[in-house]
Amino acid sequence: MINIRNAVAADIPQILFFVKELAEFEREADKVVATEALLHEAMFGGDRPAAEALIAEIDEKPVGMALFFHNFSTWTGWRGLYLEDLYVTPEARGAGVGTALLKYLAGLAVDRGCTRFEWAVLDWNVDAQKFYQSMGAVPLDDWRINRVTGDALAKLAGRG
Amino acid sequence: MINIRNAVAADIPQILFFVKELAEFEREADKVVATEALLHEAMFGGDRPAAEALIAEIDEKPVGMALFFHNFSTWTGWRGLYLEDLYVTPEARGAGVGTALLKYLAGLAVDRGCTRFEWAVLDWNVDAQKFYQSMGAVPLDDWRINRVTGDALAKLAGRG
Repeated sequence: MINIRNAVAADIPQILFFVKELAEFEREADKVVATEALLHEAMFGGDRPAAEALIAEIDEKPVGMALFFHNFSTWTGWRGLYLEDLYVTPEARGAGVGTALLKYLAGLAVDRGCTRFEWAVLDWNVDAQKFYQSMGAVPLDDWRINRVTGDALAKLAGRG
Repeated sequence: MINIRNAVAADIPQILFFVKELAEFEREADKVVATEALLHEAMFGGDRPAAEALIAEIDEKPVGMALFFHNFSTWTGWRGLYLEDLYVTPEARGAGVGTALLKYLAGLAVDRGCTRFEWAVLDWNVDAQKFYQSMGAVPLDDWRINRVTGDALAKLAGRG
């Protein structure tokens, strides 16, 4: 029996553990510089969080997580729900945890008036893409994310 | 002389006009369902806006816009700055308005502690891609956005 609940501050160590497990799967483990203190401040430090999370449990044991925030579309003129991280532990895969998290998030999106529910998937993760498309997701194949970070960001800002 | 300032509520009609002009350039004009009332509520209706905008002016005439919000990275554990729409009027192109807006946004990102400044570009818009890369942007070629909307969203949420 899968139970889904809102994450609370006490879940931060578990969330960071899941974030690191997911980054390892994505072959990007060295990119995770987040700390428990940063996540706590971002998710529970203010009156409107920079991100929120759901915890999926089986027999009261955490087996998965969805971390999300609100983006914004100028075309719709309103907020969307953006799923940043979806993670299910290897032991719990195949039990419907990912599906349950996505359905719960879709419900949250509808309840909050969002007309879009979005997330990014790696192009080599074909299994995930098939899974998402079976649930009604459409890949936006013609858009590419551009990113400026670090020294390039400081230089662009004229602070280099 | 390019001047950049924060958008105020009185700019909403101008912002919506720019949004529609940009959507037309992106060959997606029919997708814009945003209204002035929706944009007003999202950008100025609460204590923390769902999106913010900058207006670029030459001789006090609006010639461009950048509309942005904060996303969140679990890898960095902090907010990023996400540029949803960047628009410069055809008459003002080549005068450095786009560059000025991107530099201003990079400064905002640094000031707000963001370590990432991101936006999406259409894969057929090669001129824009070259321009962005000349400013230090790196394309994330292996990620694809997935989107669930409309009936598919209602169905996934179990409200169909």
